[in-house]
Order: sequence, then structure tokens, then C-alpha cells
Amino acid sequence: MKPLGIGLIGTGYMGKCHALAWNAVAPVFGDVSRPRLAALAEASADLALQKAQELGFEKATGDWRALVTDPDVDVVSITTPNAFHPDMAIAALEAGKHVWCEKPMATALADAERMHDVARSSGKVAVLGYNYIQNPMMRLIQRLVSEDRIGEVNHVRIEMDEDFMADPEAFFYWKSEATSGHGALDDFGVHALSLITILFGGVRRVCGHMAKPFADRPLKSGGRRAVETYDIATILLELQNGASGLIALNRSAWGRKGRIFVQIFGSKGTIMYDQERMNEVQLYTTEAAPHVQGFSAILAAPQHPPYDKFIPAPGHGLGFNELKIIECRELMRRIAGEPAHIIDFETGIRIERTVDAIARSAHEGHWVDVAGSERRAAA
Amino acid sequence: MKPLGIGLIGTGYMGKCHALAWNAVAPVFGDVSRPRLAALAEASADLALQKAQELGFEKATGDWRALVTDPDVDVVSITTPNAFHPDMAIAALEAGKHVWCEKPMATALADAERMHDVARSSGKVAVLGYNYIQNPMMRLIQRLVSEDRIGEVNHVRIEMDEDFMADPEAFFYWKSEATSGHGALDDFGVHALSLITILFGGVRRVCGHMAKPFADRPLKSGGRRAVETYDIATILLELQNGASGLIALNRSAWGRKGRIFVQIFGSKGTIMYDQERMNEVQLYTTEAAPHVQGFSAILAAPQHPPYDKFIPAPGHGLGFNELKIIECRELMRRIAGEPAHIIDFETGIRIERTVDAIARSAHEGHWVDVAGSERRAAA
Amino acid sequence: MKPLGIGLIGTGYMGKCHALAWNAVAPVFGDVSRPRLAALAEASADLALQKAQELGFEKATGDWRALVTDPDVDVVSITTPNAFHPDMAIAALEAGKHVWCEKPMATALADAERMHDVARSSGKVAVLGYNYIQNPMMRLIQRLVSEDRIGEVNHVRIEMDEDFMADPEAFFYWKSEATSGHGALDDFGVHALSLITILFGGVRRVCGHMAKPFADRPLKSGGRRAVETYDIATILLELQNGASGLIALNRSAWGRKGRIFVQIFGSKGTIMYDQERMNEVQLYTTEAAPHVQGFSAILAAPQHPPYDKFIPAPGHGLGFNELKIIECRELMRRIAGEPAHIIDFETGIRIERTVDAIARSAHEGHWVDVAGSERRAAA
Amino acid sequence: MKPLGIGLIGTGYMGKCHALAWNAVAPVFGDVSRPRLAALAEASADLALQKAQELGFEKATGDWRALVTDPDVDVVSITTPNAFHPDMAIAALEAGKHVWCEKPMATALADAERMHDVARSSGKVAVLGYNYIQNPMMRLIQRLVSEDRIGEVNHVRIEMDEDFMADPEAFFYWKSEATSGHGALDDFGVHALSLITILFGGVRRVCGHMAKPFADRPLKSGGRRAVETYDIATILLELQNGASGLIALNRSAWGRKGRIFVQIFGSKGTIMYDQERMNEVQLYTTEAAPHVQGFSAILAAPQHPPYDKFIPAPGHGLGFNELKIIECRELMRRIAGEPAHIIDFETGIRIERTVDAIARSAHEGHWVDVAGSERRAAA
Repeated sequence: MKPLGIGLIGTGYMGKCHALAWNAVAPVFGDVSRPRLAALAEASADLALQKAQELGFEKATGDWRALVTDPDVDVVSITTPNAFHPDMAIAALEAGKHVWCEKPMATALADAERMHDVARSSGKVAVLGYNYIQNPMMRLIQRLVSEDRIGEVNHVRIEMDEDFMADPEAFFYWKSEATSGHGALDDFGVHALSLITILFGGVRRVCGHMAKPFADRPLKSGGRRAVETYDIATILLELQNGASGLIALNRSAWGRKGRIFVQIFGSKGTIMYDQERMNEVQLYTTEAAPHVQGFSAILAAPQHPPYDKFIPAPGHGLGFNELKIIECRELMRRIAGEPAHIIDFETGIRIERTVDAIARSAHEGHWVDVAGSERRAAA
Repeated sequence: MKPLGIGLIGTGYMGKCHALAWNAVAPVFGDVSRPRLAALAEASADLALQKAQELGFEKATGDWRALVTDPDVDVVSITTPNAFHPDMAIAALEAGKHVWCEKPMATALADAERMHDVARSSGKVAVLGYNYIQNPMMRLIQRLVSEDRIGEVNHVRIEMDEDFMADPEAFFYWKSEATSGHGALDDFGVHALSLITILFGGVRRVCGHMAKPFADRPLKSGGRRAVETYDIATILLELQNGASGLIALNRSAWGRKGRIFVQIFGSKGTIMYDQERMNEVQLYTTEAAPHVQGFSAILAAPQHPPYDKFIPAPGHGLGFNELKIIECRELMRRIAGEPAHIIDFETGIRIERTVDAIARSAHEGHWVDVAGSERRAAA
Repeated sequence: MKPLGIGLIGTGYMGKCHALAWNAVAPVFGDVSRPRLAALAEASADLALQKAQELGFEKATGDWRALVTDPDVDVVSITTPNAFHPDMAIAALEAGKHVWCEKPMATALADAERMHDVARSSGKVAVLGYNYIQNPMMRLIQRLVSEDRIGEVNHVRIEMDEDFMADPEAFFYWKSEATSGHGALDDFGVHALSLITILFGGVRRVCGHMAKPFADRPLKSGGRRAVETYDIATILLELQNGASGLIALNRSAWGRKGRIFVQIFGSKGTIMYDQERMNEVQLYTTEAAPHVQGFSAILAAPQHPPYDKFIPAPGHGLGFNELKIIECRELMRRIAGEPAHIIDFETGIRIERTVDAIARSAHEGHWVDVAGSERRAAA
Repeated sequence: MKPLGIGLIGTGYMGKCHALAWNAVAPVFGDVSRPRLAALAEASADLALQKAQELGFEKATGDWRALVTDPDVDVVSITTPNAFHPDMAIAALEAGKHVWCEKPMATALADAERMHDVARSSGKVAVLGYNYIQNPMMRLIQRLVSEDRIGEVNHVRIEMDEDFMADPEAFFYWKSEATSGHGALDDFGVHALSLITILFGGVRRVCGHMAKPFADRPLKSGGRRAVETYDIATILLELQNGASGLIALNRSAWGRKGRIFVQIFGSKGTIMYDQERMNEVQLYTTEAAPHVQGFSAILAAPQHPPYDKFIPAPGHGLGFNELKIIECRELMRRIAGEPAHIIDFETGIRIERTVDAIARSAHEGHWVDVAGSERRAAA
């Protein structure tokens, strides 16, 4: 069988992460042909050439439009800043390529809706880079819920905090511009929504609040510029399953580096997870005798697939980059027509609509039905 | 000097806690006369007598009204269920006694307002049992903020979770009746508000949500009864200082036993605290070199007064009951006319009004100004 | 019944701790008569008088010999530096008093043996202040072992670390003098041995090593003086039950404040405990399904007696001082002829002999049978 | 430049780990040519062929001797059971290949000495798979020590625990046979020694103890067979730098999955590390004001090279397999004649001699000079 031809656009943070995944997916999983790293696009031909050599791609180009029409390319990895996603994804889909696009879909809901429409009509695989759902521990959480270990879920809290915007004297850059989106909400809050979507089927009603910890930031050119995005967001939720929920997001949270703190409360137990200790899940149940009940710290192990594909010994630890390898395998499964655990544009657009509902709620000061955003989208 | 005469009403959970504090305050602090444990009231004379012997009180009575007028009594500890607080506190104040009443003030705002009015006109000391603010680690947090170690505070989250209502098959009892109040919000959410009040001066606007994890509960007499109170509450906040905030409360949170998880984010650092590890404060600042920055786990020590009054060695650990001894000392300071770190009815009524605003917000589905509850109270 | 008359010698760290316990034992436990705090002795009459007032004792004296013969005194709490224990304990026992003496018994084995001999012939209760064994979590550990939750214990590690000797530029004081004993080994290593004794019946063979992290220390008078004691000790063990073991002690361990880290490995599970988080026990067993096995963090709760005597709610936390209240109750039980969970001189002397064996082993560089120290004692 | 030709012997746990590293080293580091995965050897030709396809190797063979003489092979990765290491490593070196051999060198010191001798005379690069020293957090520890952040190191403790031998009813297999070595000591204790060697230059004197938690184990064929190796080892140390030390090893430690717990005590601070949370280092220093001193949890970040080669964002977490990629880069550095942070046979043989000294000490019951094993080796 002809190997899958890969085209990569972008070689920054997530671009390199995609490249590492395409390099590793075959030897890790052992049940899939090694993809052909066909072409790489960057902002300039020179940079593209250098990165292609480093990352093992055959061809290099400074023109992403050439890449998406390259006949050697079957799948396009899109890892550029969010504002570029719509044009690239739509062009790739229209050129008959599968698309693996980093989250969020776009900086405006209308663009995301267009992406979704094109994906649907293209018949191609179009999936999003929601890597955290690929963590074997996140799958364990899903399994624990479905095994009824904590009973009926009635309350969920997800916090997501990092500190890359925490320094008030860091220079103003594009993440503080309104054109980049709402702020923490879409920049990484979509990860929280991806977990809720996978675990509980999504959100029914929302009530959001967004805040700017710093009114302005210094410009490199001197002077200061008003911040236009919201580094903090807090959201009350009613989930599809009727549970009450909460999301808190802060990208100016000093000391938090990759925190995603999840608490899931049920009628028989509680699950707790912290992405900064991504190889542990905490589980409390009422099964043991009362005097020995406590939160159990479950370490990632071969019992939690696909951890076993990486390491045969328990508790030795996967890393962040390895989640992308798992996601890559799921993408390949989907392309091969097999069942896959992955967020496609069909599910992704629901996350985008929820983001939209939250932002409207924050601006209007009351609860908003997510279905409203869905209807607006349909209109 | 004549020792202070103590009258204790109630000998349950917090009643015993008060009794232990009155017994220990003099030997722990060494700078105050041993109070005279004058009288104890319980529901029956027999029970009162038994408890008086156990807890070291001279007199016992089945009639709390006798206690509050007893000339040997200078201070009345009120530790009965919340619904009894108003009558007892008002009677004691009107009899010229100082009052030490457990939180919350009452189950209805109007009652709390009456208590507040009587206290003000009585000229007596009237304080509330907000013991958590007495933790030396909570004082450390206050010090860290005032020392500017984390810069300007821009975001605060407080979670308070226990599991005493977590079992859906536990029998219906008074905490599920509407007459007991709103539920988690006033039952223990007031503790979260007490911290915010002490640390940041209170709350400006609120948007709350309250949920019932279980629609009904079994009756001992057979059948089931609909639950009338809300075991879960989640609240978006705008604090007096302009920071955004969040409170999440759950008294049906399996595995949480006495969790009060506090996160305070500032422009230069972050503070974190968990009441279940009540002798630790976590502090992140940007002072150290980047490669050694991390959350520091500060253990309670003699450097954190009044820990030193209990133990001369660091890290050996205070307990929950000892917070009440500190509170007792602060009460005695206040009675002696000295500056005291304690929540009196003046501050307490602001907490009650915030509770009221949250409850209204939850019922109405939008943001509510706390000043509105204050104005309603004034009207 | 006439209340028990208490005499307290010493009002420092542990002296105050004893005083607080004598004040609190009756109201906490409710099943014992309030003791009469009869007399207090300190180094001077003035200091004694001041402390008696603070701590609630009737009489004060600068002469401990007067206290031990005072007819109002039934029990003598001995809390002075270790070198004073033998004379005081022996005098008290010979005066017909019960004795509650802080650990260790003495600074030399021969003195401890004399104390043991006198206690035996006196017929009086003579117990030692090994407070850590009174922690409800330590009793839980005992229960977990006896319930066979971790199977047959085959390996034990105990670390005990504090940092009160960690600063190399702290002035030389008596703890660095050879007359104070060996160093970390007897200063606090006896606590580790007390746990092993209670849990596993003691030690069969030992191989110890002792180290001086700092060769000398500054003198207040100028110059430096060579350190004579060992702030670090490490010990290999064979326990009475055949398990292998390890003790590591360090009183110059920066950052450790009251660490006692216990790991107990068995054929079916593992127990872990850290005194700095003294309200938690960690338990791993193989009972749950493999994919949910993990260390469970059990929080102290009313299911762990006598926690329930202090607080009816779980997870609210006992403090260090409260362990002494429990010990006090056990002492009173023993005096009343009831079964008591406490280390008396009979058991305590075995700990002292083990200390002696360890010290000899460290000096001789090979394994030593504890029975050898026992035989030497008998000779 | 011709790419480096790789030959891999063995495709089990560490074999796959090597293969993943060879696949990933170029795209991760970007400064090295992609190696040519030339040949793979397994126990049978069929298995070799299957694994070669999975792991991306060109040729496959059932005869490792063919691989080590294959002209396309420049470096041989040896990942077979320890007993095979000597023959393979020596054959490869004698065939003029560089060798990357998993630890420990051999199951008998004499074999390791032969390997060392051949490596020395071969002039080829011969290094060992001590992956834990490659963790950026371990390098951070090294940096913290060399920056004098904790002052002079005076005490070190390393524990290494897993539970793959913890079930007493697991079938007897080769790890319980004397031919496999001493047991926990050489099976994984060498990792602890690798850390001590890298950080402190090695060990001067040792006093060891080894224990069998289970006397026998069931045979698949029925009946039971006596266990010949020691699953538990405990060792007192005097380090080269004069510090006292301790190693505790247990491969039957229920609940421990990949624990390597390191405590390093110095005159100004303490470092703590747990491999089960491999992206964190805990640091206590006395630099901050006393009331804010505590252990800081430093999360792995780009400030800790070569973390930055994997992820540009802090706190996102490396995994176990990624340590081998770093090791692979160091090996390539060494082959290219650049300075490399890696343990070669020269250093590795010192670890083996220390193992030998510990085992002798355990059998003889007293302290042993490591130099003795070195002299024996030289004789």
C-alpha cells in the first residue's frame, strides 16, 4: 500500500509536535505503515528548507498553497496561528486532502462554520488537534465514568491556567489584539470544552465572565497599548447531562505552566486530574470500608491503553509530545475508515458555538443557551 | 480582676469546640486570665448536667433563657443550629451580654439584620465564629498580600467542598429543608466569603447558580421527600478591589472532607492553600531566578503567629480545634477593648447580604449588585 | 473520687505541651475526672510562679524535689532536658508518684536501666512521652497491618528529619556536647524506634552509621568548638518479625520541620505516612481492579478513634499538641488499671538498649545483635 | 556526510525504546543527520523481520553476530537481557563498532571488566544506557549543586522501588535465578549509583544488606522453587566527597511503579526529586525570608535544557522515552568527538565495582572499601 503522504504547514510549537508525531507513529504503534513526509511549508522558502531537513521532510516550500495541491500530499497538518486556519483548511479540503488542523478552528465563528461546511461537503477527513483527550489518563477517566465507578455525574469543574501572559510588563503582541479572538476563552478554553464534550456530550447553557488583569502593556516601540483580549474567563455551565459545571481559565496565572485541573463529582465518587501531573488520575469511591476510603492516585500503566504501546512498565510516564503521536494514530485510523477517538470538524464546530455563546453571555451579563449559537449558525 | 464568666448554649460539634477553646485559651496564650466556665445550657436539664461535668462548667440548665440572664455570665457562646441564632443572640445582647455566635448569623437575611441592629445598639461585643480566618496560615496569606509579594491581586478562586450530603440514599433531614436556608451557600459558603472579606474587603457584584444533585431523598418513615435546598452552588464574582473571582461550593462532594481550596492570582505571583492540609501555604513568586521558580510549600511555624503560642518547633501542625482557641483569644481582646482580628456582626451582616445577593442572582439568572441587598436591608 | 493531682517539672516545649494536655483531657474525652493541677516546678521560684499562673497550676516551686514529695501530687510530668530525667524520675517513683517522663529515658543506658529497675520495684505507673504513636493515623496503620490489608510485612523504612541543627553557623549549644547523648540517634531517633516497637515488636540486629555534617560550630564567646554529637544517623535493621528495615535520621535537614516518613511494604500492599501531613495515611493494596489501583490518601476521620473525641467531622485535622492529650488519657487509663496504648519503662528500656546497640555498631563498623545490649544490661 | 548506520539487537522494553530514540533524535534536536536504521537482530529471523518493519529498520537477521559485522552498521544498540551483554558488546567492539549497551554491564564483575578492557583497547565509543541521568531535571539538580544553591552536600538518600516482583504468587522466572545477578542491587540499583556517580563522583565505602521478601515462588510446572536473588537491598554509604549516604532498593514494593526518590541535603538547602513525577524538582534554600521558606516545586521548562528541544512551553511534561532520545543525542555527540554527558564503560565499570563491593559487604556483614573491588579488578 502506498504510504500516506504528509504535508506540514508551520514548524513552530505545534508544527514541530506534528512532525515528531509523524516520525514516531509507525515505530510506536507498529501496526501502521510509515507515512511519507512529503512536503513542508513555512513563511519563507529558506526557512522551509532548513526545517524540512531538520524534521525529515522531502520537499520544502515558502508557499503553502503549493503544498496543499501537491499530489504527493494526502494529509495536511495545519499548525499556523489561528487566524490562518480557515483559508488553509478550506484550500486543503477543496484540493481533496485530509486535514489535521490545530485548535481552535478559527478566530471567528463564521469562519469556523465555513470550515465545517466545506469539510462536510468534501467527504475528506477533517480533524482538530485536541491532544489532551488522547492522554491515556483522560481515556481512563472516560472509562471510569462509563464503568459507573462514580455513579451519576452531577458536578464538573475544569480549570486551565498558564502564565505566558502573566507578566504585566511583557511587550504587547498579537495575543492581546482583538483579531486573535476573545482571549483565554478560545486560546485554550476550547481544551476544557473538548474534555466536557468527550466526557459528557457538551454544554446546554452558559453564563460567562471575562476579565483583563492588565489594562495595557508596553510596546516595543515605546509607550503602551490597551489590551483588547481577556486573559481571564470564568464560566458557569449547565451540561447536556443536566450536571452543573464550572470552567475557569487564566493565561496570566503565575506559576501555572500547563495546569488543567479537572474535578468530576458523582453520586458514588469523585475523579480528579491535573495535567501538570499528567500521568496520574485521582479516584475516590465509596467501595472500600469507610476507614480506608481516600483518593487513590492511579499512575499511568499498560492497563491504560495506549500507554502500553510506548512503555511496557507502569508508572514510567508519558510526555506531552506523545499525546500527539496517539492523536496521529487516531487520525490515521479515521482515514483508514476505522473507528477513531478524535474530534472532527463536526464535533469541533459545537465547541466553537459554545465559545460564541460564552462570549455573548459575558458581554450581556446573563445566561445564554448554546442552542442559540447553533441556531444563529444555521440561520 | 474578676474572670470573664462564660455561658455556653449547645454542646454539639461547635459547642464542644467552644468549650475546648474556653478551657485552653489561658494556658495557650498565657497573657489572659482563665475564664470562669459559669453555665451551660442544653435541650434538657439532664443533658446539660452531663455535659457541664464533661466540659467543666459550674452550672447546667435546660433553659437557655435562664443562661443568658445569669449574672455570672458575661459572654454567651451560641452554638445551636442556625435557626436558633437570632433569638438567642438578641436575648443575650439585650441582657447585656457579649455574644460569640457561630456562623452564619441566621437562616434569613431579615433575622440577621435584626441581630445586627440589636448588636449595634447594645454596645456589647458581638462576634461570629469564622474560625478559618484564624489559621496562622490564613494570616500569612494576608501578610503575603500586604507585603506585595504577589503584586496586585487580579483573580481569586475559592472552592469549599465536603461530602456530608454526598450519599443520595442518606435519609432526608433538616439540612434538606428550605427552613434551614439556601443550602451549601449559607451553610458553609459564608466561610469562603469570610476569607474574601478579610483579604479583599468583600464583593461588589455576583452571579450565582445553585443546583440539587439529588431530587429527593429517602425518609426514615418510608417513601421519599423532595430536597428543598441546594447542595451545590457556583458563583462568579467581581470583588471590591476590581478583581474577578469565583466561588464553588459542594456539600455532596465525595472524598472532600474539609476542603477549602484557595487560589489568589496577582501581577507578581500566586498563593494557593488547601484547608485539608491546613498547615501549608503555597507561594509562587517571580523573585527567584527563572530556572528555580516554583510553588513553595511553606509549613506553619513560629514565624507565623500565633502558631508560636502553641508549639515552639516549626512544621509540627496545628489542628482545627486550635483555630477556635485563637478566635477565643481574639474575642477576649475585643472585649478588653484591644484591636482584634475577628468578624463582628458589622462585618458579618455584609457577608449575609452577599449571600442574599447570590441567592437572588441564582434565581433570576443574571448578575446582581451586592449593594442592592444592602439597600434592601436599609429600606 | 478525688481528682488526680498533677505535678509538672519544666515548662519549655514539652512542658507546656503537658500542661495543655492536663487542661484539656477531661473536656475532650468526657469520661474522666478533671485532674487537679497541683504544683509546678521550674528553675527558679519566680519563673515557676509566673508559669503556674499561665498554665493554671495551684502551687509553684523552684525546687523540683519539693514537688515530687508534695502530698497533693499523684503524677509527675517530667519535661526537663534529658540529662535530668533519671534523678527526677527515680525520686518521683521513690516518693510513690506515678511518672510521665518525656523521651528518651536518659542520656546513658546505665541511667535508663536504673530508672527501669526503680520503676519495676515501685509498682507505680511509669510511662514515656512517645506522642507520635498516639496519632489516630498511627493507630490506623496498626489496624491496617493487623487487618492483614498489606499482607506480611517484609520491609520497613522510617526517616525522621528536622532542621534545627541545619545552620552550620548557628552557635554551639548543649545539643552538640557529648554529654547530651549520641545526637540524632537518641535525640529523636527513639521516636522511629517507638513506632517499630509498637508496630512490629522491635529490632533484632542493627548496623548503624553516624555522621557529623559540620566539624565545628561558632561559640558565642568567639572562636569555634568541635561538634561532639552526630546530627545524622543511618541504620540498617533486621526486625523481630524477620523483615528488613532502615532508619535514617537527620537533624540538620534543611526544609524538614517535623518529617517522619514511614514506608511499610508487605506482600499485599504498602503503607506510607508523613508526619508533616499528620492527618493522612497512604495505603496501596491489590484489592481493586488493576486499572484503578493506586495509593489512597486516607484523611483522619471519626472512623479513626479517638479522632472522634475531638471533632465529629472528617478531614478537619488534629494538631501535634492534641497527640499529647490522647497520651494523657492513655496514661490516666493505665493509672486506673485499664488497658492502655502507651510506652512504659518496660518497653522504653528496650528502645534504649536498641539505641545502645546502634551506637556500638556505628563505632565498630559491623552488625550488632540488640540482645547483646540486653545481656550487657542484665549483666 | 554519510549518516550513522544503526544496528539494534533486541526489541523488547529497552529495544523499542532505543528504536524510538533513533527515529526521533534528528527531528527533535535538528542539529544532527538522521541516522540510517540499517539492521535489526532478534532471536529469530521471522521476529526480526516483523520488528524491522515496525521499527523502520532496513535489514533483519536472526543472528546478532551477522549484525555486529555488517558494514552498514556503525553503532550497535544492545538491549538484550544482561547476561548477553558481554559477548555482544565485545564482539561489536572487536568488529570496530561503537556500542550503546543497556545497563548494567554484565551479571558478573569479571565480565564487565573484560568489556571495559576491550572497550579501552578498541578506541571505539562504548556507552551505557543510564537514561535517568539524561532527565533535564537531573541536570537541573546537577546545576543547583554546582551553583552552590544548597551549599556543601553532607547527606544523600536514594530510594528506587518498583513492584514487578511484589506478588509472592507470581511464577518463578529468570530474575529469581542467581545467574541473573544479585537481584535489586544490580537489576536497578545501578541507576541509583549512576546518579551518585554523576552528581558526587562515586562512593568510597559501603555497608550493604540484601533480603528476600519471599523464600520461594510457584513454578508454572507445579511445585515451588527457592528464590535465589534478593529483591530488597539497603546500603549505607560514604561518598567520595565525604558525605554520608543511603540507598534503598525494592523491586517488590507494591504501589511503586517507577519510584526513584532522591534527597540531597546540604549546608544551605535541600533538593528532593521523585522519578514518578519526573518533571518536578523540589528545592529548599534559606535565601528567602524565614516566613516564606519552603520546598519549591520547580516544573520542567525550556530553562532546563534540553527540554526546550522538545517543547517551547514550560510545565508540559517530558516522558520516560524522551530521556532515551536525549541519551541518543549525547551518544552521537560522543561519536562526533564532542563533549557528552553520558556514562561510558570507563565510568560504568566503577559502578559495577561498587555493586561488587556492596554485595560482598552484604555477605560479610561489615563495611567494605570500594577501592578493594577496584584493586581486585586490577589484580
